[in-house]
Amino acid sequence: MPHNIAILGASGYTGAELVRLIATHPTFRIKALTGDRKAGQPMSSVFPHLRHMDLPDLARIEDIDFSQIDLAFCALPHATSQAVIAELPDTLKVVDLSADFRLRDAEAYAKWYGKAHAALELQREAVYGLTEFYRDEIRAARLVAGTGCNAATGQFALRPLISAGVIDLDHIIMDLKAASSGAGRSLKEHLLSAELSENIKGYSVGGTHRHLGEFDQEFSAIAGRDLRVQLTPHLIPATRGIVMTCYLHGDAGTVFGVLSRAYADEPFIEVLPMGEIPQMKDVRASNFCHIGVAGDRIPGRVTVIATLDNLTKGSSGQAIQNANLMLGEDETLGLMAAPVYP
Amino acid sequence: MPHNIAILGASGYTGAELVRLIATHPTFRIKALTGDRKAGQPMSSVFPHLRHMDLPDLARIEDIDFSQIDLAFCALPHATSQAVIAELPDTLKVVDLSADFRLRDAEAYAKWYGKAHAALELQREAVYGLTEFYRDEIRAARLVAGTGCNAATGQFALRPLISAGVIDLDHIIMDLKAASSGAGRSLKEHLLSAELSENIKGYSVGGTHRHLGEFDQEFSAIAGRDLRVQLTPHLIPATRGIVMTCYLHGDAGTVFGVLSRAYADEPFIEVLPMGEIPQMKDVRASNFCHIGVAGDRIPGRVTVIATLDNLTKGSSGQAIQNANLMLGEDETLGLMAAPVYP
Amino acid sequence: MPHNIAILGASGYTGAELVRLIATHPTFRIKALTGDRKAGQPMSSVFPHLRHMDLPDLARIEDIDFSQIDLAFCALPHATSQAVIAELPDTLKVVDLSADFRLRDAEAYAKWYGKAHAALELQREAVYGLTEFYRDEIRAARLVAGTGCNAATGQFALRPLISAGVIDLDHIIMDLKAASSGAGRSLKEHLLSAELSENIKGYSVGGTHRHLGEFDQEFSAIAGRDLRVQLTPHLIPATRGIVMTCYLHGDAGTVFGVLSRAYADEPFIEVLPMGEIPQMKDVRASNFCHIGVAGDRIPGRVTVIATLDNLTKGSSGQAIQNANLMLGEDETLGLMAAPVYP
Amino acid sequence: MPHNIAILGASGYTGAELVRLIATHPTFRIKALTGDRKAGQPMSSVFPHLRHMDLPDLARIEDIDFSQIDLAFCALPHATSQAVIAELPDTLKVVDLSADFRLRDAEAYAKWYGKAHAALELQREAVYGLTEFYRDEIRAARLVAGTGCNAATGQFALRPLISAGVIDLDHIIMDLKAASSGAGRSLKEHLLSAELSENIKGYSVGGTHRHLGEFDQEFSAIAGRDLRVQLTPHLIPATRGIVMTCYLHGDAGTVFGVLSRAYADEPFIEVLPMGEIPQMKDVRASNFCHIGVAGDRIPGRVTVIATLDNLTKGSSGQAIQNANLMLGEDETLGLMAAPVYP
Repeated sequence: MPHNIAILGASGYTGAELVRLIATHPTFRIKALTGDRKAGQPMSSVFPHLRHMDLPDLARIEDIDFSQIDLAFCALPHATSQAVIAELPDTLKVVDLSADFRLRDAEAYAKWYGKAHAALELQREAVYGLTEFYRDEIRAARLVAGTGCNAATGQFALRPLISAGVIDLDHIIMDLKAASSGAGRSLKEHLLSAELSENIKGYSVGGTHRHLGEFDQEFSAIAGRDLRVQLTPHLIPATRGIVMTCYLHGDAGTVFGVLSRAYADEPFIEVLPMGEIPQMKDVRASNFCHIGVAGDRIPGRVTVIATLDNLTKGSSGQAIQNANLMLGEDETLGLMAAPVYP
Repeated sequence: MPHNIAILGASGYTGAELVRLIATHPTFRIKALTGDRKAGQPMSSVFPHLRHMDLPDLARIEDIDFSQIDLAFCALPHATSQAVIAELPDTLKVVDLSADFRLRDAEAYAKWYGKAHAALELQREAVYGLTEFYRDEIRAARLVAGTGCNAATGQFALRPLISAGVIDLDHIIMDLKAASSGAGRSLKEHLLSAELSENIKGYSVGGTHRHLGEFDQEFSAIAGRDLRVQLTPHLIPATRGIVMTCYLHGDAGTVFGVLSRAYADEPFIEVLPMGEIPQMKDVRASNFCHIGVAGDRIPGRVTVIATLDNLTKGSSGQAIQNANLMLGEDETLGLMAAPVYP
Repeated sequence: MPHNIAILGASGYTGAELVRLIATHPTFRIKALTGDRKAGQPMSSVFPHLRHMDLPDLARIEDIDFSQIDLAFCALPHATSQAVIAELPDTLKVVDLSADFRLRDAEAYAKWYGKAHAALELQREAVYGLTEFYRDEIRAARLVAGTGCNAATGQFALRPLISAGVIDLDHIIMDLKAASSGAGRSLKEHLLSAELSENIKGYSVGGTHRHLGEFDQEFSAIAGRDLRVQLTPHLIPATRGIVMTCYLHGDAGTVFGVLSRAYADEPFIEVLPMGEIPQMKDVRASNFCHIGVAGDRIPGRVTVIATLDNLTKGSSGQAIQNANLMLGEDETLGLMAAPVYP
Repeated sequence: MPHNIAILGASGYTGAELVRLIATHPTFRIKALTGDRKAGQPMSSVFPHLRHMDLPDLARIEDIDFSQIDLAFCALPHATSQAVIAELPDTLKVVDLSADFRLRDAEAYAKWYGKAHAALELQREAVYGLTEFYRDEIRAARLVAGTGCNAATGQFALRPLISAGVIDLDHIIMDLKAASSGAGRSLKEHLLSAELSENIKGYSVGGTHRHLGEFDQEFSAIAGRDLRVQLTPHLIPATRGIVMTCYLHGDAGTVFGVLSRAYADEPFIEVLPMGEIPQMKDVRASNFCHIGVAGDRIPGRVTVIATLDNLTKGSSGQAIQNANLMLGEDETLGLMAAPVYP
């Protein structure tokens, strides 16, 4: 049965990625696309790679007839998103890709995002969208909050280990390598090709990256106590992809066993054979996540490396996976395309 | 109705691209994969990005039971291909991705490839696989010869113009920019990342690129007389994609009209509005070809720029498009995935 | 004898490149750096790669005491440059890196740059800064206009051929591949890494690139008649470098001989052996220009390919080469650093 | 006073980098270049970017008259190097860039390099070439062993901290990002542009990277006890550069103070202001190393990030710095060129 879909904020990278994935989705039909500053333009003038598709022109949100829409993806900037969603019909199913509804605690939101939340009721209603761990809640949800792309990667690596109590919670270090599309289509000097090529730079070093709010919330909930991890993000000269290298205290064999069992039946999470190291390009433009485990010459140390595509599994692919559940479809519908390599 | 597919030479880039595209093809089932030097290995050890798929291990060609196969893609190196295909059951449908059957003339083959053809009968039987221009022949063919990726790009830009007689045949210049995957997964110094990054280099300058053999054959046939174009290929620091910039003598409006009409009903060929210039990334990992036309300040000059992904529309996507026809399927089956951008 | 140098507009790429080159120049001393919006900041906050140098802070132009300055490099944006230079002491030697003084004809300037020139007297005074062809004038000049980087590349390829009358002036086609730093440190969407990586796009197609104004002026002067060339620029996924592929009607041997002789004694222009093709990376971060010549299978056609680094030989290196002459130094002083490879 | 220099193994990247740096060195004169497989060829056929230089052709080592040579750089592969150096006149000063003489302990060498050392006496004679920490020994040495490029980076970050006893020696984690030229000009599949672009992959995970032998040796010597660090290297899509992110237990202010004081008078080591994070591109093609320090939200944790160019400061630049000392020159001679940015 076809479902009518709206994408709010279709002129950014996650919006374009949603359109790309829905292009071959068997039951989703794009009925509305919005882009405030570009309202009135055809999508192909913003993203010429979509010119072969028969898409509605970009519209303003207030011009959309939501009574015809089954589900809306909201790919708007943080803060804008909560204002827009608060005005949508409260029966409309929504998958939000911004950071606005990821943190359940209003204070935590204020701390990490620098201002009070303006839609507290919605914040309480929203379900955290890490599909593999919130399936039942997502199936029943009206509003799902897409996770941070880096937050998703780290959680795939560590949630089962924290649950199983097989790693030392006081020694979790995550070294993050993140490609530039995670910053969106924004005009910032450090995102220029001339600056980023042949470059690597740490940023938000020392515990200031906003996705730490998600790690704090989720890991503490699993651990049953306050848990703080250490995270150093680095911007890398690539367009799509995240690699999270996790330095842990624990037994490698045990860690491998826990991860293997946890994801044995997951369609999108692949735990590699013990000692094999995943590479970022192996998941490009796909909804897959690869995880590798290796022991260390220092006894009791183990390294877990996870990789996914920030725009697909880390954002728009995850959003469609969640929408499939919310609309009663098979979770994998439209998402089984193989990674693009090379 | 499902069709059983074999891929001979699955351990190279075009082989992997075939598998990637077939992963979401509704009626093709991969029944056999071969890779001589890697026979016995699982495909995931050669291409870990395919590890989520349930694929047969790489086998040796002589171990394949072709009685169960409806169509074989042959992604072997030039010269090897003709030897292998000559030994296959002569009822088996074959799409060859090598250069072995592109040239109908035995002498031309010997000239461009430096040795006599060893399967002349097959060479005469083979149909040239430029789908948009050989549809009927391909539908009826047993053996189809995939075109050169650069040759495809140039022909999409120029065939309708030569047919229509709207450009000066003695002044056709093609400046080619080609990404590195066109050279395959071969260990050559100039393909190393350290050599190719921040680099551009012309090669086969002066009329020695082998795809000229295809241009000569096809363009001469259309023109009804010997026709020689000028071509300078350049290797660019990118992985996928071809841009062909064609310098022509002709009227821009007329040229645009001819191309627009020629491709009006083609599902994969997009002629951009007059004056718009296509960019390589807009067709990445897709079966689409974008073509742009611009006039010049010098009267009577026109520039036509065409771009496609060498591994998809230029090779494996084209091969599947042809296989669809040969097996009685809709030509676009499994090929409508949108380009990956950014 | 040391010379005191000021760099006006030091916060852009050409400004940084001037500082880099002067860092090892034996007789130039940087006495003042300006950057209006960043006045008051240390240079290392704008360009941390220069933090080891003992440089003056960025100042405003009006705060510079030009009586202590022997020569000023002006690396300001077009139009700003002419206003600033008009206010400088008229005895100060100036090398301008903008486009403001490249065109001798006021009408040509107005046509290509879209507004009337505001410093016509200076425009007449300025000497065109293509060192190899204007040495004597530059030595005697007070104001030298740096050439366009693409314009320099094309002229190195073609000036001797036009002078010698060995190519057909009505069939000159130049296909340009230009790296992104040529556009400066400007926040434009198409210069983002996520957009430019894996991309190639033609721009200013059809005869609208501003450097055509320089080609028209210089080539017509040599030819003794109006001469118009055809030029298609392409932006490539690289940071530094230009490759100009020139399609010409002429005899390859003759063309090679003319170029070889023309540049036999030039320290920075290398004509490669007949048939060898230059690559962009071979001149990176250096003041060298490599030129290759190849015949074609079509009799009477010849391809000339020239490459240089747009920031060095195409701009800041050329500027220092000119400043050396203006200050009575050896032309090559500070410029003999070998290219950075790989 | 000029010094006559030979470069053994000039056809690789470190050989070419030596030539590049010596091109503007005021007192070094290149008298001999060797390259066994390419003996007889001009250097410009192996590295066309050096064609403007007046260089001797590549020769075989046995054809060099070492009586005319003051110092030889040996840029040969591991294992070959020890065999070659053992045959050189024992009065010849030698800077070896291979791994052959880095480890003082014969057993450690055998363990990390998989075979017994064949020149034990030389191994004992060799001085470890980390200039900033072995100056006096290097000045007096005949044979200096260049350090590993990654080993150099990590030691610049950590040596002063271990010496000062301000970090917990049992919790040292180093996450390494290394560009591809560190692997040399070798034909390996994972170094192909098509494989490495848009890719990141961990390798030698778990304590198997050979440079750990150097860390073990040097850090244990400073600490006065066996010290084992944890290291995860990652190959990144870049050509030059290393970033080492060190996760430490210690007080950030103290750590910053120790590093600042340690390097206050060093010409090539720049400690950035507290909290500033270095970026890889800021040291490209130069002999500089940038180090940044940042505290963490978790008390008692500190992150130190160091970056340098593997081919310059990590290898050939270091070698020249050492040669300067060995030949009685100022240590910085020929090495003060500013980084190439962008």
